[in-house]
Amino acid sequence: MNYPNGNKKKATHASSSNNQKQSFSNRGMRLEDDINQTNAYYLAKDIAVIHKKPTPVQIVNVDYPKRSAAVIKEAYFKQASTTDYNGIYKGHYIDFEAKETKNKHSFPLNNFHDHQIEHLKSVDDHGGIGFIVVRFNQLDRTFYLPAMKLFSCWERQYKDGGRKSIPLHVFENEGIEVPVGYPAIVDYISVIDQLFFK
Amino acid sequence: MNYPNGNKKKATHASSSNNQKQSFSNRGMRLEDDINQTNAYYLAKDIAVIHKKPTPVQIVNVDYPKRSAAVIKEAYFKQASTTDYNGIYKGHYIDFEAKETKNKHSFPLNNFHDHQIEHLKSVDDHGGIGFIVVRFNQLDRTFYLPAMKLFSCWERQYKDGGRKSIPLHVFENEGIEVPVGYPAIVDYISVIDQLFFK
Repeated sequence: MNYPNGNKKKATHASSSNNQKQSFSNRGMRLEDDINQTNAYYLAKDIAVIHKKPTPVQIVNVDYPKRSAAVIKEAYFKQASTTDYNGIYKGHYIDFEAKETKNKHSFPLNNFHDHQIEHLKSVDDHGGIGFIVVRFNQLDRTFYLPAMKLFSCWERQYKDGGRKSIPLHVFENEGIEVPVGYPAIVDYISVIDQLFFK
Repeated sequence: MNYPNGNKKKATHASSSNNQKQSFSNRGMRLEDDINQTNAYYLAKDIAVIHKKPTPVQIVNVDYPKRSAAVIKEAYFKQASTTDYNGIYKGHYIDFEAKETKNKHSFPLNNFHDHQIEHLKSVDDHGGIGFIVVRFNQLDRTFYLPAMKLFSCWERQYKDGGRKSIPLHVFENEGIEVPVGYPAIVDYISVIDQLFFK
């Protein structure tokens, strides 16, 4: 089942505030599904154990009917305090966030929030492998960008005239394009191999 | 905010099906809060980066009122496919589940489900540090039990006459009692140090 996800919504808002239009051009917006399938493949083949965290929800009101399951009657989407994905690969801690955009030339930094950047910094400090996966839907290209590269873009935005987005060429030059195929649909583990285990 | 948690409910059900009684004797049932505080301390002191995963919820119906936050109007608690806590310590992947019981002599295995055991096995296979934290509320004792010890109890239950619970003496003899104090309320990292880094 596809249920609403605050982050995903925000990411698509960047280029389209028209819901009608969005639902028609939504077919390519499947990064989350693709990564979940990739993770299921990694798990089935005993390659890596990486899971998406559940969407954080603030539960306000729950009904406990007799003889049937509890029903949440009122709840709100909460801002995540970490990234969406984490797990283990070759004994190493893996942690990343995945986002997609309809933009063609850059990726807006407002797709992330401070907590996530702080979290990725902690991961980095403690010896984990932190990164982001960004898909440019219109270009049909998906990139792996090491957390370290994200940090420098993130800090630059607060400087005078600093840009509020990561230009495509940063992904091209400082990131690695993720091979997209089958059965590992978004094969980010192959990028990790290339960066750390070769 | 304290919100209902399917797992926690299940754990307390083991010894009390009377809600009235439960709410009065609930004061000691704080393992989750204690671990969250401990994790916040580890994070603040840059000791470890370990977070609780959000409660998994199946969202069925969401209302998007104009000019205010989306309201989830219908949702259900889902069974978790992994454990509740994971993160990184000294470059190592950490993964565990925490449960409490009012029993005095044993911990019922039905507090876990197959997916969680499978998950802990994968963590173990991939070189992560997997374990459970179990608190006996009436005894005011909290134990760390390595995942490996849990597996043998888990398998034994399916044998003829196999017991459906982990006796206290298994925690005492094959686990390690977790020091409880301040500011690390449930100092499981000290147990990991003892087991792996000394």
